[in-house]
Amino acid sequence: MRARDVLAAFPPITSDTPAIEAARLLCEHKAPGLIVVDENGRPYGVLPAIHVLRLAVPGYCQEDPTLARVIDEPHADHFLDPLEGRTVAEALRHVSRDLPVADSEATVLEVAALMARTGSPLVAVVSEGRLIGAVTLQTLLDRVIPQ
Amino acid sequence: MRARDVLAAFPPITSDTPAIEAARLLCEHKAPGLIVVDENGRPYGVLPAIHVLRLAVPGYCQEDPTLARVIDEPHADHFLDPLEGRTVAEALRHVSRDLPVADSEATVLEVAALMARTGSPLVAVVSEGRLIGAVTLQTLLDRVIPQ
Repeated sequence: MRARDVLAAFPPITSDTPAIEAARLLCEHKAPGLIVVDENGRPYGVLPAIHVLRLAVPGYCQEDPTLARVIDEPHADHFLDPLEGRTVAEALRHVSRDLPVADSEATVLEVAALMARTGSPLVAVVSEGRLIGAVTLQTLLDRVIPQ
Repeated sequence: MRARDVLAAFPPITSDTPAIEAARLLCEHKAPGLIVVDENGRPYGVLPAIHVLRLAVPGYCQEDPTLARVIDEPHADHFLDPLEGRTVAEALRHVSRDLPVADSEATVLEVAALMARTGSPLVAVVSEGRLIGAVTLQTLLDRVIPQ
């Protein structure tokens, strides 16, 4: 198996991607983060899922989670509503520029070694310098675990 | 919605859990980590998925991922084999003791605020002090994202 065989082919995002769309992509692809590309389509980092959540949760609740108890259940259920109309640009200062990158021909052990070394559960996969997808730790384990 | 309504009810592990079983639980439940309990069943931390991977990947490959290229593809595909016969005890020194804990009656906003504050994509859920499961960032987003 090569990196190209274990791709979770979710689309990259840009700073213009709506925050709610980023949340949907994270869910749909069960991704721990999304790859951010610049205006030329070059990958330059990873946006961890937790930072999309942080865009939505009010600052005072993040400072003291017990304060979230004053919000009643019906309103709490809609805590993602503040994402509407916003883009991920606000979260870009949290983007890690240490995105590990593997060639599409890399073996699964090479990909695993990259994850183990960097601590990133997401590796960008390129072919001839072009981004073709990503491998997540979940996708990797799913494929290599003995049945 | 309350924490009890968004549970990913995967079983906790102990230091005696076989490493390969931990890998299977991570896959099966698409979990970013597993909750570790002590001999009295009390949760005391979270084992991140990446540390299970680190048990399997040879040290020299973690130090220099390019060295993984010398392992041919058929052998690379079986890089989890070294987990056989071992337990997660070896990885326990990496267990974070900062496991966030929510009551089963906590709202989803309280759970989200705990994740946002601690950076943990996994929150242990207790009822009357007893562990009843966990909420992952994925499970949480899945349930609250507007359709």
